[in-house]
Amino acid sequence: MTPTGSSSGLPRAVVLLSGGLDSATTLAIAQAAGFACHCLSIDYGQRHRAELQAANELARTLGACEHRVIRLALNEFGGSALTDPTINVPTDGDQAGIPVTYVPARNTVMLSLALAWAEVLGSRDIFIGVNAVDYSGYPDCRPDYIAAFEKMANLATRAAVEGAVLRLHAPLIDMSKAEIIARGNALGVDFGLTISCYQAAGDGRACGVCDACRLRRAGFIAAGTADPTRYSATPVVNSAAQS
Amino acid sequence: MTPTGSSSGLPRAVVLLSGGLDSATTLAIAQAAGFACHCLSIDYGQRHRAELQAANELARTLGACEHRVIRLALNEFGGSALTDPTINVPTDGDQAGIPVTYVPARNTVMLSLALAWAEVLGSRDIFIGVNAVDYSGYPDCRPDYIAAFEKMANLATRAAVEGAVLRLHAPLIDMSKAEIIARGNALGVDFGLTISCYQAAGDGRACGVCDACRLRRAGFIAAGTADPTRYSATPVVNSAAQS
Repeated sequence: MTPTGSSSGLPRAVVLLSGGLDSATTLAIAQAAGFACHCLSIDYGQRHRAELQAANELARTLGACEHRVIRLALNEFGGSALTDPTINVPTDGDQAGIPVTYVPARNTVMLSLALAWAEVLGSRDIFIGVNAVDYSGYPDCRPDYIAAFEKMANLATRAAVEGAVLRLHAPLIDMSKAEIIARGNALGVDFGLTISCYQAAGDGRACGVCDACRLRRAGFIAAGTADPTRYSATPVVNSAAQS
Repeated sequence: MTPTGSSSGLPRAVVLLSGGLDSATTLAIAQAAGFACHCLSIDYGQRHRAELQAANELARTLGACEHRVIRLALNEFGGSALTDPTINVPTDGDQAGIPVTYVPARNTVMLSLALAWAEVLGSRDIFIGVNAVDYSGYPDCRPDYIAAFEKMANLATRAAVEGAVLRLHAPLIDMSKAEIIARGNALGVDFGLTISCYQAAGDGRACGVCDACRLRRAGFIAAGTADPTRYSATPVVNSAAQS
């Protein structure tokens, strides 16, 4: 069996790293907790592909031992404004219910891939930066969902059969966006490198008007710290042609 | 929201179709139960890629309304004889414990993708051909794993939040291989089209000596029916170079 520890002697963790503010802070928390962090990003055909480059830069600057991008064509299923160019990203503020930027089963798919890699690495710890407070209404960001995934994962693998316990860490789940920003700042995260915008331009500049930009901007104001986000001079609104 | 029913008026189901004997019988069961079947295969870098062509042929002959193959590079993680060309497929009979042909978290990954597609289709039913009797010792083929995945899935999606109940069907879970073959024969499955071999040749011929071949061959003998499998004239043993 693959050893649990890394060559550094630290226990290994798989960290889902999207390149946004939340996952960057999650990585910093996992590093501070003493894990050798193996970061995983999924190229799922998202509009805001600039986040993949941001993830790579964040993994490097935060001292992760590895960063991998796995390609998975979730856009072939469609059904989300983030993967279907015919559905516009809303830019007029929070709507009631689950927004069209919800990607069907995205966190379940990403956690499944993290579970697969964790098993190969001999890691018993997976980190994900979901958040149930400022969470945009996504079903797969809720605490009972995270608990149910962890329970399923502990029946799914060879390691589980052999008695290992897999822990699914969601350290941000009860934090406000302002609290996440404060924690990230305390841990040295350079939020200028992170990209939250659902329709970020190729150079990483944020539109400033989508739900993700609104939540993020409000978080910096509530945290009372400077917002290092690079916004587009002319906000990008409903640009379906962007990739 | 996407309607639950298909254009034919039948309720839609997503059926995981590997191209093997079990998933073919599962598809026939789903069709007989009155579902409009949307079949999903995963090209995960498996050695036995001939099964993907078999899946396509099976979907067509069994009357499924759609077949999709999603590419996902699970072989980048390695850790299994089915995805890592440096690990040989065992050919000397059943070993104790979980075999090296176990692909880390494979069923969790596949079910997650089925869940994503089901949500886009508006389907509330997913079928998977796992089997806990002649199951080669894989952890993610056990009834308690299937129940835990279903529970997690019912917290994961927009449909679940809106009150829909997702059902994860594993109709073969308590059946012996001989019973599966008898059921498939009764439903008109052409097992000559199916490929179970872990190291099937490019033309679909089976090695006859890997665990999957042994279980399958014993199943036909126990069922008392002819074995239509096309075996290699010279059994393929530990051919790591095959793809």
